[in-house]
Amino acid sequence: MRFRELWDQIAPIGRTDDGYLRYAWSEEDLALRDWFAAQASARDLAVQADGNGNLFAWWDTGHGPGVLTGSHFDSVPHGGGYDGPLGIVCGFLALDELRARGVRPDRPIGVAAFAEEEGSRFGLACLGSRLLTGDIAPERALALRDRDGVTLAAAMARHGVDPADVRPRPDLVARIGAFVELHIEQGRALAEVDAPVGVCTGIWPHGRWRLDFAGEGNHAGTTPMSDRRDPMLTAAYAVLGANKEARLRGGHATVGRVSVRPNATNAVPAGVSCWLDARAADREALDGLVAAVRARVADRAARDRTEFTMVEESLSPAVSFDAALVESCVRAVRLAKVPRLDTSAGHDAGVLARHVPATMLFVRNPTGVSHAPGEHATDADCAAGVSALADVLGELAVHR
Amino acid sequence: MRFRELWDQIAPIGRTDDGYLRYAWSEEDLALRDWFAAQASARDLAVQADGNGNLFAWWDTGHGPGVLTGSHFDSVPHGGGYDGPLGIVCGFLALDELRARGVRPDRPIGVAAFAEEEGSRFGLACLGSRLLTGDIAPERALALRDRDGVTLAAAMARHGVDPADVRPRPDLVARIGAFVELHIEQGRALAEVDAPVGVCTGIWPHGRWRLDFAGEGNHAGTTPMSDRRDPMLTAAYAVLGANKEARLRGGHATVGRVSVRPNATNAVPAGVSCWLDARAADREALDGLVAAVRARVADRAARDRTEFTMVEESLSPAVSFDAALVESCVRAVRLAKVPRLDTSAGHDAGVLARHVPATMLFVRNPTGVSHAPGEHATDADCAAGVSALADVLGELAVHR
Repeated sequence: MRFRELWDQIAPIGRTDDGYLRYAWSEEDLALRDWFAAQASARDLAVQADGNGNLFAWWDTGHGPGVLTGSHFDSVPHGGGYDGPLGIVCGFLALDELRARGVRPDRPIGVAAFAEEEGSRFGLACLGSRLLTGDIAPERALALRDRDGVTLAAAMARHGVDPADVRPRPDLVARIGAFVELHIEQGRALAEVDAPVGVCTGIWPHGRWRLDFAGEGNHAGTTPMSDRRDPMLTAAYAVLGANKEARLRGGHATVGRVSVRPNATNAVPAGVSCWLDARAADREALDGLVAAVRARVADRAARDRTEFTMVEESLSPAVSFDAALVESCVRAVRLAKVPRLDTSAGHDAGVLARHVPATMLFVRNPTGVSHAPGEHATDADCAAGVSALADVLGELAVHR
Repeated sequence: MRFRELWDQIAPIGRTDDGYLRYAWSEEDLALRDWFAAQASARDLAVQADGNGNLFAWWDTGHGPGVLTGSHFDSVPHGGGYDGPLGIVCGFLALDELRARGVRPDRPIGVAAFAEEEGSRFGLACLGSRLLTGDIAPERALALRDRDGVTLAAAMARHGVDPADVRPRPDLVARIGAFVELHIEQGRALAEVDAPVGVCTGIWPHGRWRLDFAGEGNHAGTTPMSDRRDPMLTAAYAVLGANKEARLRGGHATVGRVSVRPNATNAVPAGVSCWLDARAADREALDGLVAAVRARVADRAARDRTEFTMVEESLSPAVSFDAALVESCVRAVRLAKVPRLDTSAGHDAGVLARHVPATMLFVRNPTGVSHAPGEHATDADCAAGVSALADVLGELAVHR
């Protein structure tokens, strides 16, 4: 089956006029899960649900720990269609290609679909893989709420998945000898060196901080400027200050989410919350960036007479992918040029890398646009990704 | 009946842990409307609905155009309980006091409840009084949508009010010989001179502008800072720039409402909208303030490589209340000190002032807090407001 043929089966699911809406445990997510099961069944793969929302389709051949590929279905709000699903579609197609090549693996080969990788619904990225590996306590995860106040437990139960089954699964992690996640690139590094596929060496440390600003709600028309304690001012300063520090220090800092209370045109807000996404090449640089933002904003809050708190919501340490696995992948891929590159984005492969050898293949993204509708890879490059993944899975699943 | 007794009948309606939610055509609004009809009936007043959502309770005595008082029930989101309802409750109590005093009016006296004064649901302030006077076209008003996409027409129809009846009512305006709205003060002017009640001389010109910023949605982690076209930066600058210009120029400028698309922590936003509320002592100052904000923000947008548009959503010209009516009120109120003061907040009295003699009585607000849960007036000052309003209505409704 050609890439486009399989891709078109899922392309309409969750597509809107303005990008994709594929939240975890939404109707769209369930449709994608059904599709996953159907694809596995069509290939005689054994589908396994881990109780944490993650699905596995295993080609139970050979023996010992298997080689796992796959990615996630869920999207950021109004995101692109490639981020996540490309790794699952290419996983199934790489299996097809291995079989077409007549490869007889000595180890099982699996395709995974991890749940809530983006954290777009419950606010915590890589939730499915963190639950699988035990990196987050089930009770903490189950109590997470979406913007409508629905808990993860309720969302799972609503779709017939028993929250009581949510727990670390070391037995399933032990089945994974290596994990190689294929993903659309989220920058232009491959485009700049004219390579369709690259291998990822590691992930920048990154995290999310919630900044809460409290002032005094009041009438926008009648309150003298000098009497105001306007938290919107401090929040606006935080947006600009975070940007400036990231530019000065060479990291990345973004405020992409804001919540205003009461959010009325004619009211000085009582409260504003915003979220800082910060990343840097190493932990020291990240800590320095976050501390600098905190100090700048605290100073401004004192001048605005607003209250300011800043809480770390998640922090993902730096990930160095298994060097031997990276080099195996670089050697296995039958392309003239296979660049090594790092990334500043978190992935399930980063979570799994703390437990099993893991790495990622990136497929070229000509514009580098990511987490937005303009995200794109050509069919030819996606097909090159399938072949590269087949090369890698074949290499890793056959004893030498 | 004492103030507190009547006040406590409506105090629970729409009250939350965090201020009041009394949106136009909500269940809370309907409960307040029912209460209005019951109060009118208990006083043998004739209730009249104008088809535009406004209610009138007339003491049909004497002849000729009447003297109208009243205010509005609707609140800003999480606002106080006094802004609006105080003028209606005091209106009924002032009628009681006039009757207790044995006053025999030569003209009708009415209490009004105007609809959607705050514009909190459909975005346009003083919607009911504007419809009554013909200051807004019915078809424009009926097409206004709330944040859930519900039109005014649908909201009215849902509650049995026929949108086909929405139209200017010059016949009803002709029944109003004078309008005196009692309102809680929205600043501390009365507190500073230790007076429980004052008379309003006019309203600053003021308006609302919608600022839209468009950039390029992208991944917050992977997009280099130098490649970004982040509309959040330009919006943040607009917040700070508007505040700075208002301070420099002596006007008021507020950004109290923000909307971010997609509003995800890990996405550079594709678009941000925010609303500017701007006011100044005269039209020239207001125009200067708005132009200065526009110029500052346009300059920043060019540097951020974002697109910026700024559209006037509403503009209320300066209002000078009828000088003779103001002086009549000052003379009529039997208090030692009756300050005259202006306001920077819009009111139905400002809309009606373009058609009939109008003014306002303000009741002292010790903290000046408005459009927020902390808004408050003492029972003693509210009772003083009732007496002052009875003084004024008695003066205006009796021929000399």
